[in-house]
Amino acid sequence: MIDELIKAIGSPSVLVGDALKDRYVHIWSMSDSLSAKAVIIPKNTEELSAILKICHRYSQKVVVHGGKTNLVGSTECKESEMVISLEKLNQIEEIDVNSRTMTVQSGVILEHIQNHAKEHDLLFPLNFGAKGSAQIGGVISTNAGGLRVIRFGMTRQLVLGLEVVLADGTIINSMKKIIKDNSGYDLKQLFIGAEGTLGVITKATLKLVEAPKSRNSAFIAFNEYEKVMAFMKFMDRGLAGLMSGFELIWGPTYNTMTSPPSSSKPPLDQHYKYYVLIESLGSDQNKDKEQMQSLLESALENEMILDAVMANSVSDLNWFWTIREDVHVIKTSCDYDHHFDVSLPIPLIGNYVDDICQKVVQIDGVNACYPFGHIADGNIHFIIDRINEDPVLIQEINKLVYRPLKEIGGSVSAEHGIGVHKKAYLPISRSPEEITLMKLLKKSLDPKGILNSGKIIDLD
Amino acid sequence: MIDELIKAIGSPSVLVGDALKDRYVHIWSMSDSLSAKAVIIPKNTEELSAILKICHRYSQKVVVHGGKTNLVGSTECKESEMVISLEKLNQIEEIDVNSRTMTVQSGVILEHIQNHAKEHDLLFPLNFGAKGSAQIGGVISTNAGGLRVIRFGMTRQLVLGLEVVLADGTIINSMKKIIKDNSGYDLKQLFIGAEGTLGVITKATLKLVEAPKSRNSAFIAFNEYEKVMAFMKFMDRGLAGLMSGFELIWGPTYNTMTSPPSSSKPPLDQHYKYYVLIESLGSDQNKDKEQMQSLLESALENEMILDAVMANSVSDLNWFWTIREDVHVIKTSCDYDHHFDVSLPIPLIGNYVDDICQKVVQIDGVNACYPFGHIADGNIHFIIDRINEDPVLIQEINKLVYRPLKEIGGSVSAEHGIGVHKKAYLPISRSPEEITLMKLLKKSLDPKGILNSGKIIDLD
Repeated sequence: MIDELIKAIGSPSVLVGDALKDRYVHIWSMSDSLSAKAVIIPKNTEELSAILKICHRYSQKVVVHGGKTNLVGSTECKESEMVISLEKLNQIEEIDVNSRTMTVQSGVILEHIQNHAKEHDLLFPLNFGAKGSAQIGGVISTNAGGLRVIRFGMTRQLVLGLEVVLADGTIINSMKKIIKDNSGYDLKQLFIGAEGTLGVITKATLKLVEAPKSRNSAFIAFNEYEKVMAFMKFMDRGLAGLMSGFELIWGPTYNTMTSPPSSSKPPLDQHYKYYVLIESLGSDQNKDKEQMQSLLESALENEMILDAVMANSVSDLNWFWTIREDVHVIKTSCDYDHHFDVSLPIPLIGNYVDDICQKVVQIDGVNACYPFGHIADGNIHFIIDRINEDPVLIQEINKLVYRPLKEIGGSVSAEHGIGVHKKAYLPISRSPEEITLMKLLKKSLDPKGILNSGKIIDLD
Repeated sequence: MIDELIKAIGSPSVLVGDALKDRYVHIWSMSDSLSAKAVIIPKNTEELSAILKICHRYSQKVVVHGGKTNLVGSTECKESEMVISLEKLNQIEEIDVNSRTMTVQSGVILEHIQNHAKEHDLLFPLNFGAKGSAQIGGVISTNAGGLRVIRFGMTRQLVLGLEVVLADGTIINSMKKIIKDNSGYDLKQLFIGAEGTLGVITKATLKLVEAPKSRNSAFIAFNEYEKVMAFMKFMDRGLAGLMSGFELIWGPTYNTMTSPPSSSKPPLDQHYKYYVLIESLGSDQNKDKEQMQSLLESALENEMILDAVMANSVSDLNWFWTIREDVHVIKTSCDYDHHFDVSLPIPLIGNYVDDICQKVVQIDGVNACYPFGHIADGNIHFIIDRINEDPVLIQEINKLVYRPLKEIGGSVSAEHGIGVHKKAYLPISRSPEEITLMKLLKKSLDPKGILNSGKIIDLD
C-alpha cells in the first residue's frame, strides 16, 4: 500500500519511520512524537482523491490533520492508522469583494483568512483563541463558534461552498459562491461539524462581511441573573443590528482574571456576582459610542444594572478583551484545569451554574470552579480546578456537569465537538434514535469506516 | 391498509372517495379536486408515526401537504399515492422571550407565527408573499427565503430544533431550544430544504429576534450595474448591522409596477435602468432615518447614485413595498406568466440579465421580460411574458435562462426548490457526483422510496 501511495503522489509526500519524529497529534503535546503507519501529505485535491482510493481499497483507516488545535481528541491517531495532513493545501485562491466571498484551500490558517479579508476592507467574522494555528478545514469540520456568534453565526453560517473528498476518493465539488441554492439537498451541511468522519474537506468558499468602522465595548456589573437577561434583551433591542458580543463572567472568574498574577486590573470593583462584557461593531466610532453610553445610562437609571464602564480608547478595548480572552490566567491558577463547553436554554443558566459550582467544590479533589461564557448564545465554559489527573475524579466531575443537561435540553458540546473525549456523554445530548441515524449516515457515506474512525460514534 | 389506518387513528382522520372532493394539490388550483388513494390527517406526531409505519409496511407512497403554496410542484400527487395533511398539527406550543425561541407544530401558518412573536415584542424575520397560507413545516422543507435574507438568513438559519418522522415511522426528536449544539452530526440540516423526501417535519423550534423599533426605506435610481454594487457595499458598511433589505428592480419591471393598471405611482422618474429599494430596521426612527438620509446624500454627492427618495411616513413605506411585493401587477400584464428564481454571483448579474432579456424577446412567442430580485443575495426573479402554454416554447425559454448558469456557478433554484418542475434542470446546478450523493442519502433514509417520491430526484 505504501508503495502504491508513493507511486501515486511521489515519495517526498509519503513519510514513514523516522520521518514521523517531528510530527505530533496535538499542538499542546508537540514533544510527543506521532505514532502512525505513515503521514501522507497531498498537494492538491486530486492527490487526496488518489490517496483515499488506495486507502479505501486496503480498508486503511486514516486520521485527518489540520492545525491540530481540536479540544476533544479528534486528531488522535492509532499506530495502525495513517495520518493525512492537509498542510500543503494552503492557498487562498480568490477574494471577490462584490460577492464578498473568499475561496480557500482547507489548510489555510484562520488568521491568514482574517488578515486577507481585512486587506480588502472586509471581515471574516469567525474568531477564537487558536486562530494562529487552526486551519479552516478543521474549523469547518468542527463548526467552530467563538466570540461573535450572536451576530454572525457559527462556522456553518459562514460557509457558502465546499469541496469534499469522500471515503472512496469521490470528489464532491459544491464550490459555488452564491448565498442561496435550493437545488436539492444542501450536501455541504453534512460535512460541516462532522469532525472529518464523513469526508475530507479540501476547499471552501467563505462568506465575508463589510469591515466595521467602529468598535465599542463596556463592562457591566450585576448581582442578579434575571437582570443580566433583561439587559441582554434591552441592549440587543437598543443596539439593533450592531451588537456583536455579549459575554458573561461570573464573580470568582472575574476576580481571578483581574488579580495578580494577571497583569489586567479590574475595570469594575470585584464584589459583584456577574460581569457582562458587551461589544458593538458599527460604522461611526463617536456616534456608536454615544449610543452605547446612552443605553447604559438608561439601564443604570432603571436599576437594570449596578455599574458600568465603557472602553474609551483602543488600549481600553484591548484591556477589556484581554481579561475575557486570556483564559491562561485561570489555567495557571489551577493545579489541573478541566474545561467544559456546555449549552443550555438561556433562562436556566443562572441556576444551573450556581448549582454546579456549589456541588463541584464539595467533591474531594476539586479546588474551585470558574464559569464564564457566551451567554447570549446559551453557551457556558467552565474551568474546574482539580488536584490531580485521577480518572475517577475526572469522571465524577464530568457526570456532575453533564447529567443535568439531559432533562433541560442542553448539550455536552456547544462548540468543541465530541471527538473521543466526549463520546461517552453523547447520549446526554442525543436520543438513541438520533444516534442510530448518525450511524446510518456514517455507514452510508463511509461503509468501510476508514475516516476518523471511532470519533463521535463507534460503529457496532 | 385503509382499515389498518382507520384502526390506528380513527375513521374521521382517514378520508377516501367523495370526501376528497374539496381537497386540492395547490392553492392556485383549488377548483381541481385532488385525485389520491386517501387523505390522512394525523392529530399528533404519534399518529403520524403510526401512519408511516403502516404505509412503510405496504410500500405505500405518500405526499405531504401543508399550505400547498409550493411553486415547483412538490405537493403534486398521483392517484396511487396517499396524501398526509398536517393541518391538525397547528398549535404554537411555547414562546420563550429570554431564549427568544418559539416552539411550533408544523401545520402552523407563517403569519400566525409572525403575529405571535410580535405580541411578545419579538420578530420572526422570515417573510414572503404566501405567509397567510404557507405552513411552517413546508416553509422549512423548502428552506424558504424572502425579503430579509441579507440580514436574517434563509429558513435554515432560523431553525434551532426539529422533530421529524422518518419513512419507517421512527420519530427523531431534535427539539432543543439552544443556539449551539456540536454534539455529533447536526441532523436537522438533512431535513431542512429536502422537500419532504427524507422525513416528515412535525415540530420546530424557531429562532426569534428582538422586534425592531424603526423601519426606513428609500428608492434609488441608477443607470450602471457597477454602481448598484458599489452602493450596496457603501450602504451595508454605512448602515452596519441595520440593513435588512436590498432589492433591485430593472427599469421595464419598475415601469410596469408603477403605471396603470397598477395603483402605485412611481416614487422616482421612470427613465432609469435600475431601481434599488433599500430597508433598514433599527432602534430609533428619527436617528435611523437621519443616518440613511445622510448616507444617500453622500452617495449623491459622490455620483454613486442618480436620484433617491426616502419614505417619510408609514404610508410611504407601504407604497414603496407594495410596488416591490405586488408581483400580481406584472402577472396581469402578461398573456402567460413564466416565473424564474435563479441565483448567481452578484458581479455577474448585470450582464447575465441584459443577455437573457435581449435574447428571450427574440424567441417567437415571448412578449417581454421582467427581471427583479434580492440582488444582495445574488437571487434574481424573472417573469417572462409568453403568448401560450406550448411546452416547446416553455422549454426553449427555460433552456435560455438556465443554461448559462452552469458555467458561472449559478443555481436554477435559489429559494423555491426543485420539486418536479425543475428536476430536468438539476444537472445545471449540481454535478453528477452531487446527484449520486443525493440519491445515496435518499436510499439510506427512505429505502422503499415512499416519501414525496419523484420530487427533486428520481431513483433508478
